[in-house]
Amino acid sequence: MSNLATEFNDYRSKMNDKLLADNNKVIKRIFNLDTNAFTEGLLDVRTKELLGLVASAVLRCDDCIKYHLETVHKNGITKEEMMEAMSIATLVGGTIVIPHLRRAYEFWEALEEEN
Amino acid sequence: MSNLATEFNDYRSKMNDKLLADNNKVIKRIFNLDTNAFTEGLLDVRTKELLGLVASAVLRCDDCIKYHLETVHKNGITKEEMMEAMSIATLVGGTIVIPHLRRAYEFWEALEEEN
Amino acid sequence: MSNLATEFNDYRSKMNDKLLADNNKVIKRIFNLDTNAFTEGLLDVRTKELLGLVASAVLRCDDCIKYHLETVHKNGITKEEMMEAMSIATLVGGTIVIPHLRRAYEFWEALEEEN
Amino acid sequence: MSNLATEFNDYRSKMNDKLLADNNKVIKRIFNLDTNAFTEGLLDVRTKELLGLVASAVLRCDDCIKYHLETVHKNGITKEEMMEAMSIATLVGGTIVIPHLRRAYEFWEALEEEN
Amino acid sequence: MSNLATEFNDYRSKMNDKLLADNNKVIKRIFNLDTNAFTEGLLDVRTKELLGLVASAVLRCDDCIKYHLETVHKNGITKEEMMEAMSIATLVGGTIVIPHLRRAYEFWEALEEEN
Amino acid sequence: MSNLATEFNDYRSKMNDKLLADNNKVIKRIFNLDTNAFTEGLLDVRTKELLGLVASAVLRCDDCIKYHLETVHKNGITKEEMMEAMSIATLVGGTIVIPHLRRAYEFWEALEEEN
Repeated sequence: MSNLATEFNDYRSKMNDKLLADNNKVIKRIFNLDTNAFTEGLLDVRTKELLGLVASAVLRCDDCIKYHLETVHKNGITKEEMMEAMSIATLVGGTIVIPHLRRAYEFWEALEEEN
Repeated sequence: MSNLATEFNDYRSKMNDKLLADNNKVIKRIFNLDTNAFTEGLLDVRTKELLGLVASAVLRCDDCIKYHLETVHKNGITKEEMMEAMSIATLVGGTIVIPHLRRAYEFWEALEEEN
Repeated sequence: MSNLATEFNDYRSKMNDKLLADNNKVIKRIFNLDTNAFTEGLLDVRTKELLGLVASAVLRCDDCIKYHLETVHKNGITKEEMMEAMSIATLVGGTIVIPHLRRAYEFWEALEEEN
Repeated sequence: MSNLATEFNDYRSKMNDKLLADNNKVIKRIFNLDTNAFTEGLLDVRTKELLGLVASAVLRCDDCIKYHLETVHKNGITKEEMMEAMSIATLVGGTIVIPHLRRAYEFWEALEEEN
Repeated sequence: MSNLATEFNDYRSKMNDKLLADNNKVIKRIFNLDTNAFTEGLLDVRTKELLGLVASAVLRCDDCIKYHLETVHKNGITKEEMMEAMSIATLVGGTIVIPHLRRAYEFWEALEEEN
Repeated sequence: MSNLATEFNDYRSKMNDKLLADNNKVIKRIFNLDTNAFTEGLLDVRTKELLGLVASAVLRCDDCIKYHLETVHKNGITKEEMMEAMSIATLVGGTIVIPHLRRAYEFWEALEEEN
């Protein structure tokens, strides 16, 4: 049965595989950096993932929000904590963030349902 | 029968109800402020709704555009007036606004059809 | 004696003259369109200038804000009305609009002082 | 059979026809300028189309990206060259461009398939 | 002697006082919300301030960055931790964030010097 | 005697040195990638620099525009060609690009004066 989170991941994986197979060196290195930047550092993974989520939300990138919601969810952040981060994003980024907040909330439900 | 405007409102209402039930105080107050900011003041509702529409258009937020198209439509603004506001948005925001203008125009037709 | 509004206009005029003398046809036509779009139409000049101001504010373009503050001021819009328009911009565009609001307010004072 | 590129063009043509029939003078002139700006000048059409593509990508406008992918494709630019332009867009615009890159790549495949 | 951080705060305080005295209710409530959103909640103040910093950085708002650098600094976050947050902002937001990173770094030095 | 281009480069070099000495690995790698992405590839350096310029212009990053104006200038692109690229940026990005175009033009004059 179709689930928003599963669908998103399938498309994302399929296209990332194609992009990496395409062999553009700059793109490959950006993907690489993306992995490195979110690993444990002075700031822990939880904090970093929340930073990624809020950055994605104020820049209003639905797919980036979905990706970080997933890693946020996997790292044990609760819905209430996620909403607190998203409320800062909505305040800083303005009411134009609200449509993305609606879709983020729906995606979070899909993540919970998937498990 | 399916109508773009009806679909949009159904999803919007359903998700707004969930967001407000979620009980994040900052989010609730932003929703509240949003209602207050567009009520009659020194500027009338018509003008304020056009301001909301143009702000949404230059920030390229389709759902925000749809919401303001609806209130603009309810407040008796004609298609020609709406297009005049959108032409300012397209000039200030650039040709990247055009795809949103196409969807706005289609949505306006759905609003007229719905009535 | 130096005044923010006078300084802004001097620089703006000097550079616009150079840009138009440079004779790039697309640039010239965009400048032209900009003049036309804000003339009286179905919407009056006051409304159009407020639309221009709010578009500039949510896109966080200080010079565009200054330009529209000036035309708004010339068209007899009061400080309270201007602030009402700017409050919609701040709500829609988020708290990142606030630094631009501070500079807009300061510029408005310069406009009043200049007269 | 359905193809992403064909669908996109059908919708785009249909709505552009409506927008132009609507007869807003500013909109019509912006459409006009858009055509003129991308014709052969001191810079050749290939270069201009790549500029249009990168501008669309960093501004994260999927429909604008699709449109320029099509003209880029028609002008004989290879997938590798397109990816080089897109890698610059992704570096300058950040990882939030990546979801648009995935959709751009998928659209390019649809363009190749269509021919 | 002049210090970037002192200058910034003086101007910010002076203009915020004027904006609040101006008595626009929506603006006052946004300022209020801004204070509330960054107080201790499920997420601690340190995390929230880093979220504010990253949101400001990807939206490329120098004054917002400065404000959050100050609160980040007051909450005992080290330069290395701040740079880790800013590196995520630069990756997500792209190389166009770099000029803001240069100014942020300079401002951080002013904060340290001020103490 | 002071020159806009010289001042810009001095500040940029000084702060880049500090950022790189700070030793954040992600930042260092982004700087590195930035150098690599603009070297000769399937697309030549001239084209790539114009892509960088237009990306910077539509994202309205003055310092990024200045940097690419400099490399564009060094690569023998004429003022007329640069203006053609900037006219595409202004059309795609809208009239909010115009203040940046004014500063770009002024900077180009500083570059010519410097030589």
